[in-house]
Amino acid sequence: MFITFEGTEGVGKSVQIRFLKEYLENTNQKALFIREPGGTKISESIRDIITNPDNTEMSYITEALLFASARAQLVQEVIKPAQEKGELIFCDRFVDSSVAYQGYGRDLGPDFIWNINKPAVDNCMPDYTIFLNLHPKNSFRHKVVENDRMELQKAEFYEKVYNGFLDIAAKDPKRYILITPCQEKAETHEKILNALRERGIIK
Amino acid sequence: MFITFEGTEGVGKSVQIRFLKEYLENTNQKALFIREPGGTKISESIRDIITNPDNTEMSYITEALLFASARAQLVQEVIKPAQEKGELIFCDRFVDSSVAYQGYGRDLGPDFIWNINKPAVDNCMPDYTIFLNLHPKNSFRHKVVENDRMELQKAEFYEKVYNGFLDIAAKDPKRYILITPCQEKAETHEKILNALRERGIIK
Repeated sequence: MFITFEGTEGVGKSVQIRFLKEYLENTNQKALFIREPGGTKISESIRDIITNPDNTEMSYITEALLFASARAQLVQEVIKPAQEKGELIFCDRFVDSSVAYQGYGRDLGPDFIWNINKPAVDNCMPDYTIFLNLHPKNSFRHKVVENDRMELQKAEFYEKVYNGFLDIAAKDPKRYILITPCQEKAETHEKILNALRERGIIK
Repeated sequence: MFITFEGTEGVGKSVQIRFLKEYLENTNQKALFIREPGGTKISESIRDIITNPDNTEMSYITEALLFASARAQLVQEVIKPAQEKGELIFCDRFVDSSVAYQGYGRDLGPDFIWNINKPAVDNCMPDYTIFLNLHPKNSFRHKVVENDRMELQKAEFYEKVYNGFLDIAAKDPKRYILITPCQEKAETHEKILNALRERGIIK
């Protein structure tokens, strides 16, 4: 089983992944946790190029191809071999993030990003995707300072990304598990555990 | 005008590019010389990942996407702006190398590599491509040591790459300028100058 976590910034994704990891460790359930972009030596060095703050001149197309490169290596080196061994894999972000952030958020178009990613994903799509479904205006870290042009642009960007995720979810309802985060992190954690238990993925 | 140089290993491409550069400098003709993968800060850091001898685990798909990433940055940051200024650009290798080496040589298929590269090239195809047309068995550096399995594999690989270039050339005869390298480098240089003069690219 290959499960991905998706969501916009500030929805508490990292915390929930940590909670899940701890729960599985405490209950002796084996699982592999990986993150994107990264997860292999080569993918991490590609991540360094993507995240290097000096690389301001990077074109959106280059960025999209670099994300796809890092993903390709992760798929071939880690995900596929783990699937063959029957392991349970949780990945923090995957191809949907590229489609939502670059296809929708940066207006490159979802089809354009899918096409770049088809060889990278190489038919290795997640069985399920847990989407932490919170509108960016409600996510804590990106509260918009009004009258600030940059902040308003950011807000608009995250709204496009969020709507992108909803679009992807609507096109793939069997794969998508929409979870609305609660005020209490432990409550969200329980929701995620239940969703995974219902599908026989964890105990 | 955007002109690329292509050819398999050991055909004297680098020397011919240097000769051309010197000729243009000596005759006060402006031109921009770039190489692939590279030509921008970001593309050079991508090149470092591709060429790093420690990255033996790199999958062919990752490699193809990395070449495309480096190309995308070169196209957006250097080639397109130079074209807009009406500059004459010579590039040591371009998309055809990816198609020949990875599509044909590594058997990923030419269409697979073209599709990865379509967003990278972004409609910025060379006006002409100078192909130094020498069968790998005649190129000096890769003389095959017979009875050596690795050497025979290499020979087979370069033969596939070479045939790939001929295929690409056959599909795009108006763009391709096939030049058979001579024993005398100066003679090959003259052939290249004449081919460029005939097309009004240089004086």
